[in-house]
Amino acid sequence: MNIILLEKQEVQGGTVLLTDRRAKHLIKVLQVQVGDTVRIGIIDGPKGSGRVVASCNKYPFQVELEVQLADELPDKPPVDLLLALPRPIMLRRIFSQAAALGVGAIFITHAQRVEKSFWNATLLNEEEYRPHLLHGLEQAVDTRVPEVFICERFKPFIEDVLPSKIREYSHLLIAHPGSSATLKSVIHERPRRILLAIGPEGGWVDYEMDRFAECGFASFSLGERILKVDTAVVAIHGRLSERRESFL
Amino acid sequence: MNIILLEKQEVQGGTVLLTDRRAKHLIKVLQVQVGDTVRIGIIDGPKGSGRVVASCNKYPFQVELEVQLADELPDKPPVDLLLALPRPIMLRRIFSQAAALGVGAIFITHAQRVEKSFWNATLLNEEEYRPHLLHGLEQAVDTRVPEVFICERFKPFIEDVLPSKIREYSHLLIAHPGSSATLKSVIHERPRRILLAIGPEGGWVDYEMDRFAECGFASFSLGERILKVDTAVVAIHGRLSERRESFL
Repeated sequence: MNIILLEKQEVQGGTVLLTDRRAKHLIKVLQVQVGDTVRIGIIDGPKGSGRVVASCNKYPFQVELEVQLADELPDKPPVDLLLALPRPIMLRRIFSQAAALGVGAIFITHAQRVEKSFWNATLLNEEEYRPHLLHGLEQAVDTRVPEVFICERFKPFIEDVLPSKIREYSHLLIAHPGSSATLKSVIHERPRRILLAIGPEGGWVDYEMDRFAECGFASFSLGERILKVDTAVVAIHGRLSERRESFL
Repeated sequence: MNIILLEKQEVQGGTVLLTDRRAKHLIKVLQVQVGDTVRIGIIDGPKGSGRVVASCNKYPFQVELEVQLADELPDKPPVDLLLALPRPIMLRRIFSQAAALGVGAIFITHAQRVEKSFWNATLLNEEEYRPHLLHGLEQAVDTRVPEVFICERFKPFIEDVLPSKIREYSHLLIAHPGSSATLKSVIHERPRRILLAIGPEGGWVDYEMDRFAECGFASFSLGERILKVDTAVVAIHGRLSERRESFL
């Protein structure tokens, strides 16, 4: 936990009283004392600092912080993800890793090679997945929670949801092991916003690739190696970040 | 399992008889029949194809393959890793993800911010970690097992082991959140081989950074976000691959 994240409504009169895992972390791991200052942030709001004004260092742990906030919100990360629903255990890791790396939004839809049973995962409820996003932000010292859009049926997603979104993006990219294009060959200028689509284990089927192509997605591959979806998300995010910085 | 990996001595007279998890995978997942061909590879040897010449599709599963091999070994990946020993559960994931992404070698040593108890992990025995490396290769369709060098004491490692190795590298890089350099600013020409050092949670201490600097390591950071070690390994590997390809 490299930043203590607070819900806006928790801060009252410039202070916040923590009594949950955040209090325990401050006491047991950071071993704060009255007068110490820690990094805090309002969820989907600015970062700042919290000065410890009172604490109880045995169970039940309590820490009261006096909160100072910066004026500005962190920037929204310039990459969004589009995933065919992965296996829940993998999706959980993707939620926290994507939030740590920085993504603006995560779109999740179906694909032919997605096991139907994955759609029963409790992880698809916001109260289940939000903690994983927050863990990623706490790791990376960010406050902006990635927006999550879940659309179980592929056809309505690609025909109705996606067209209203794609105007935001300068680059629509789809990772596809069969493609002969490299990232370098599909990004010719500094991207403003990128939507990156990554398929299920086994890849998108031709029908799905055709629909994405109709929406304007350019396909690329990383070469011959086949990666698991969670590894691919992080590796391609790294590549996109590096390519983006090459235009600076 | 996107390739069936075989120990060289398993192939006798041009055929191999599989009776373990590989046989089960061929029968239950790939549902092979006599006459089918599957991708195979000799561990640390060439890839090739295996034609099913006999199979038993109920327990105990058996598959006999007639093996055809290519002449050439896959290239050795141009990136090696140097890690401060991570938490075992994280190291396990790093072994398979690094093997999947492609690394030539993994050096593991101590650092001040590494918990001493991590050195008791059974995972540090070759028979424990090798299966995780093989899983990564099976995923990525590669046969070259990353070499693993474990040196528990930092000083002998940096003074005796490392100097004999670093001649191989065109680039010695160390990820350090405090650095103001970017990857772009420390890689000016196409790297031949890169040794990438990634510290423990909390980073290397000054003494360690100084020793690495004396060895010729250039430090860089990815910006303000703090990543977990396993996320950093994959994200930086992706960035290095992209930067490397930018010189093509």
